[in-house]
Amino acid sequence: MSRPFVLRNTIRFSHTDPASYVFFPRYFEMLQAAVEEWFTQALGVNYADLILKEKLGLPTARTECEFLKPSRLGENLDLAVYLEKIGRSSMRLTFVGTVEGEIRLHAQSVLVVIELADGRPVAIPEALREQMLAYQKRQGPIPARPALRSQA
Amino acid sequence: MSRPFVLRNTIRFSHTDPASYVFFPRYFEMLQAAVEEWFTQALGVNYADLILKEKLGLPTARTECEFLKPSRLGENLDLAVYLEKIGRSSMRLTFVGTVEGEIRLHAQSVLVVIELADGRPVAIPEALREQMLAYQKRQGPIPARPALRSQA
Amino acid sequence: MSRPFVLRNTIRFSHTDPASYVFFPRYFEMLQAAVEEWFTQALGVNYADLILKEKLGLPTARTECEFLKPSRLGENLDLAVYLEKIGRSSMRLTFVGTVEGEIRLHAQSVLVVIELADGRPVAIPEALREQMLAYQKRQGPIPARPALRSQA
Amino acid sequence: MSRPFVLRNTIRFSHTDPASYVFFPRYFEMLQAAVEEWFTQALGVNYADLILKEKLGLPTARTECEFLKPSRLGENLDLAVYLEKIGRSSMRLTFVGTVEGEIRLHAQSVLVVIELADGRPVAIPEALREQMLAYQKRQGPIPARPALRSQA
Repeated sequence: MSRPFVLRNTIRFSHTDPASYVFFPRYFEMLQAAVEEWFTQALGVNYADLILKEKLGLPTARTECEFLKPSRLGENLDLAVYLEKIGRSSMRLTFVGTVEGEIRLHAQSVLVVIELADGRPVAIPEALREQMLAYQKRQGPIPARPALRSQA
Repeated sequence: MSRPFVLRNTIRFSHTDPASYVFFPRYFEMLQAAVEEWFTQALGVNYADLILKEKLGLPTARTECEFLKPSRLGENLDLAVYLEKIGRSSMRLTFVGTVEGEIRLHAQSVLVVIELADGRPVAIPEALREQMLAYQKRQGPIPARPALRSQA
Repeated sequence: MSRPFVLRNTIRFSHTDPASYVFFPRYFEMLQAAVEEWFTQALGVNYADLILKEKLGLPTARTECEFLKPSRLGENLDLAVYLEKIGRSSMRLTFVGTVEGEIRLHAQSVLVVIELADGRPVAIPEALREQMLAYQKRQGPIPARPALRSQA
Repeated sequence: MSRPFVLRNTIRFSHTDPASYVFFPRYFEMLQAAVEEWFTQALGVNYADLILKEKLGLPTARTECEFLKPSRLGENLDLAVYLEKIGRSSMRLTFVGTVEGEIRLHAQSVLVVIELADGRPVAIPEALREQMLAYQKRQGPIPARPALRSQA
């Protein structure tokens, strides 16, 4: 069956704020954790090796996130990772966060592959690109971005 | 002279990653700090009192950020806060981050005023709204969003 | 067999510093996560319920930690939790962190049970105390604190 | 007059937990910030240069901290840095945190100077050592560790 890679994140005390909800920058740490496990588990490319042995970096060049509903201490946030687009040295990912099937956040990020030594973008290594293309085929349909709720 | 409120953030070891650059979720903590000081210093509404005494919350409902150039340990990141739009219970802010005048990031967030007790949006208190309108008049022109560099 | 509760923590990019090692304050977030899962899984007292429903808090009143060897991105740090001593409203815990059996850190903390409303210590609830006593019987011997390596 | 270097830390929303108090691992980030500014401002040795140019690291090898009273959003925590002892490649620091003169925390850490390349301790550079000795002469008396309040 086609479906995306999902990383479950238990909401910890360290994630929460005086309202007992997740403080929004903590969500971006969870997105990063999802990327790491997506590489290692879904693409079969060990993320730590990529950084420490291949000396590549994967900084986030842009991100946007809609926080649709707050999440609380003790909840399990499931972060699904969708690969939207593959460029020469960058990729666009969509993340959908749910708790027991209820959507909590929808995010999109652009990540760039760089040489750690000089920070310059490099072409995505061919073996990694093939894994990414294979992932796109099995990830299933990408959920549409939810209608904006909170436009000031 | 018209100009925006600016909070200077020294880049700390705790902000940086194995490439010695700021790890991107830390920028959102700095945006949050800029919001807090903007309330307290520029709007004259003590942020801590708003939370602890008025029992209001100011969660970020959506955010997007373009990271144009990395920032390093020891640099001083100046975060300028621009008030784009004021809604009934929400506001849209633009943040421009520079180091010695060189742009590093451009972000936009929507913040909502809520009751901490039940998480429901409430109308922006009138005194705060007046301060916000006055700020809009003296903040100067809002820089345009930079052309996208890194579209996967 | 007698043995302690152990929480496995995968070392993430967000934990590491420019030397690619865990930045030491991140270890304390992991200790906190270990306490939360120890309550929920080992004591059978849901940590989130304790905070959100019982309105109790469990702040750390003191802590000390010896960092014996650095840990790197991608490693799995196993944190074992030992209950040293139970007081009226506080407890002393020892944590031993290992990666594939090799010791990385040894920590001791005192946690206090408080009322969230006023911050005052309260007696450990009886049902919780019984679970704690039962845990002490099955946790196995507490490893001795390692000899100090790095006395300035 | 003899007195120690002090770094003022404004307590941010990002530091606080569901009880509106500082979550204890955040204090260690503030201790780290105090060390960085102590190097740069009090010892005249730019901390960022030490890491990025000299390729030295200053990991914390051990730390202990007594949290005597919680600190809240909006408070200004003044962290005083005392240099207890200077070893060959390590140093022992005492930190005293106060808000308007009231003590909030007392901490002691051992920091080691290492080569970033291989993680090995190296002798404290002579110029740095001289600055440290000069600092010891002007820091004033080191406050005694407060009596323990919370022994489980």
